[in-house]
Amino acid sequence: MRANINYNHLKESYLFSEIARRVSDFSKTHPEKEIIRMGIGDVTLPLCSSVVEAMKQAAEDMGKADSFHGYGPEQGYDFLREKMQAYYAENNVALELSEIFVSDGAKSDLGNILDLFDKENTVLIPDPVYPVYVDTNLMDGRKIIFTDANKNNGFLPLPDDSVLADIIYICSPNNPTGAVYNREQLKLWVEYALRNHAVILFDAAYESFIVDKDLPRSIFEIDGAKNCAIEFCSLSKTAGFTGTRCGYTVVPQILEFDGMKLNHMWLRRQTTKFNGVSYIVQKGAEAVFAKDGRKQIKENIAYYRKNAEIITSALDKLGIWYTGGKNSPYIWLRCPFGLDSWTFFDMLLSEIGVVGTPGAGFGKNGEKFFRLTAFSTNENTTKAMEKFRSLIEKGAGRL
Amino acid sequence: MRANINYNHLKESYLFSEIARRVSDFSKTHPEKEIIRMGIGDVTLPLCSSVVEAMKQAAEDMGKADSFHGYGPEQGYDFLREKMQAYYAENNVALELSEIFVSDGAKSDLGNILDLFDKENTVLIPDPVYPVYVDTNLMDGRKIIFTDANKNNGFLPLPDDSVLADIIYICSPNNPTGAVYNREQLKLWVEYALRNHAVILFDAAYESFIVDKDLPRSIFEIDGAKNCAIEFCSLSKTAGFTGTRCGYTVVPQILEFDGMKLNHMWLRRQTTKFNGVSYIVQKGAEAVFAKDGRKQIKENIAYYRKNAEIITSALDKLGIWYTGGKNSPYIWLRCPFGLDSWTFFDMLLSEIGVVGTPGAGFGKNGEKFFRLTAFSTNENTTKAMEKFRSLIEKGAGRL
Repeated sequence: MRANINYNHLKESYLFSEIARRVSDFSKTHPEKEIIRMGIGDVTLPLCSSVVEAMKQAAEDMGKADSFHGYGPEQGYDFLREKMQAYYAENNVALELSEIFVSDGAKSDLGNILDLFDKENTVLIPDPVYPVYVDTNLMDGRKIIFTDANKNNGFLPLPDDSVLADIIYICSPNNPTGAVYNREQLKLWVEYALRNHAVILFDAAYESFIVDKDLPRSIFEIDGAKNCAIEFCSLSKTAGFTGTRCGYTVVPQILEFDGMKLNHMWLRRQTTKFNGVSYIVQKGAEAVFAKDGRKQIKENIAYYRKNAEIITSALDKLGIWYTGGKNSPYIWLRCPFGLDSWTFFDMLLSEIGVVGTPGAGFGKNGEKFFRLTAFSTNENTTKAMEKFRSLIEKGAGRL
Repeated sequence: MRANINYNHLKESYLFSEIARRVSDFSKTHPEKEIIRMGIGDVTLPLCSSVVEAMKQAAEDMGKADSFHGYGPEQGYDFLREKMQAYYAENNVALELSEIFVSDGAKSDLGNILDLFDKENTVLIPDPVYPVYVDTNLMDGRKIIFTDANKNNGFLPLPDDSVLADIIYICSPNNPTGAVYNREQLKLWVEYALRNHAVILFDAAYESFIVDKDLPRSIFEIDGAKNCAIEFCSLSKTAGFTGTRCGYTVVPQILEFDGMKLNHMWLRRQTTKFNGVSYIVQKGAEAVFAKDGRKQIKENIAYYRKNAEIITSALDKLGIWYTGGKNSPYIWLRCPFGLDSWTFFDMLLSEIGVVGTPGAGFGKNGEKFFRLTAFSTNENTTKAMEKFRSLIEKGAGRL
């Protein structure tokens, strides 16, 4: 048997293990120092009560013969897909039920969708980027080209017709930069994809953080997108489902390449390699879209948004350039004093005990940038940003 | 973008939809006739109480800040993997924790594991077979060769050194035939794989139905298997998890091809394309392996085994040849009167309202065979087999 040698081209990701190592070393030598973590992308608030109650009820139903559920439809139960359909309709996106696939998370589907594409396609990925887009394509041996996201374009690169790509990754609101494409910008990408017979993989995992009514929450708000795009969404950040696991993927019926309908291919892929999401989790997800659930998750998002405001208001006062924070839980700031991101990481850790994520971990264009997240507590975020301000102000005098 | 044209080589599976169509047509023309379903592979008994209680508790924990769980380890929580490790130890199989990967089911892992293998490998699949093995390899464009399972070899084909294969599928207890390999037979497969540098994908989803102490429940009970095999297991049939979703896959640390460790590759695959199983489901799965859970699921399996006995005892009395039923929930019988499987299907449906699965749906060697499952109620199974006996006895006189 010959193993898939493309795996030899993967680099080990040392980002989060290296962060953990440096934090652990620091804690050992400075056991008295308090550490505030603002680097992780995981939520901290518990599941809202209506989701918990729905899952408890579902577990109970599974224990009784007359309400037991065995194998469900691989693409998800209609009771949940109808809620998702209605959610899209609020943004004037009309979807057929058959276009919505419930999954165990956006990460799974973003990886698995590549089954549908030939290995000879060229992939266009922004730098900096969520490393999963890169690694999943390296595993298949696809050619990857990078498009620069940087301060000049506000970390929102636009299409370039001199670059030919078949598969395009767009994440908006972006991880790690928090930047969000507007309608006109997304339209340029849709037009580029249609012109070049490319497919856009649109990662909308952070859409629920968008407050600005003018910003698109779904690529399907853009005319023509159903002819060129697949959208991935998740309840991880929307409803704190990082450990509960539920997402959804939209594959338009009209989307076709080489005479092959991607919706039909994805249904075939999922019915062959997947058996659907746990009934209990789908009942919890249904509660997210119900009236009480919507109200409760809005409160949670407002809580995280408060943190984002605390961070951006401190950066505004310090005159530090950043993207994100307004319509995203991520704040992507330029390291002060021209520092590189790992040096800045060490400075924040050793001087004030604050842990963020060095931008270099997301690509070469992140080398002078730094990611802070809004998922800590209000209290710790306030404390961290006060220390941050005084450190930078002190440093500004010193440097 | 070029789509994966291998999908054009997939045949639509009409088996279960065709069964549903024929049953529906019959019910319309004969609304007064009772239908007993003995064709499906889905469980019918509800989850046992200790699993339900564990999941309710876990859902509650997720609703409180101090017991909330966000992202978990992609390969599963240690609390569950330790239980699985102990379960293997009962059969004298010593596993390292890092060799066990918790998943959302055997079907997902059986499909996704192919990511690790080059597309140029040749695949050996028994006929008749669970169609997923075939379809997942067609999607990748791999060459497939079939090995005949038939009445002569008791539907347990043995290796043939004149046939060169790189990837070998073995399902024991088998779906659809219920046949189970003994130690000596599995040893021949392990030796063949080691001789030919092949990997065995061992599907042990039905291991909990084995009662005969001499039959292996895991391929790792065979010397040398850790150098050539990956094992897939599931709680679907063991604990009624078809709608709850949890399985596990064992990839030995020692397993290596082309200098690449498959365990390390699978960990990389799972951390890149998967985010772990829901915490709530993993807590439910943990309860399956605890003392009360073990006792409760044993009662459920005994209930299904009773059905298998009702079926096999009727077949014994009628002198009908079959495999399975003793150490498996499936009974694979030779169609009486030399009928082909779809004709026999129509006869059972129209004469006695019993629905089974025509063997032809699983491959050419199933054309004269028929699958009955033990997942109905005791009452219905008894009723169905009484009707079955009188039908066959009547038919024997008539034909």
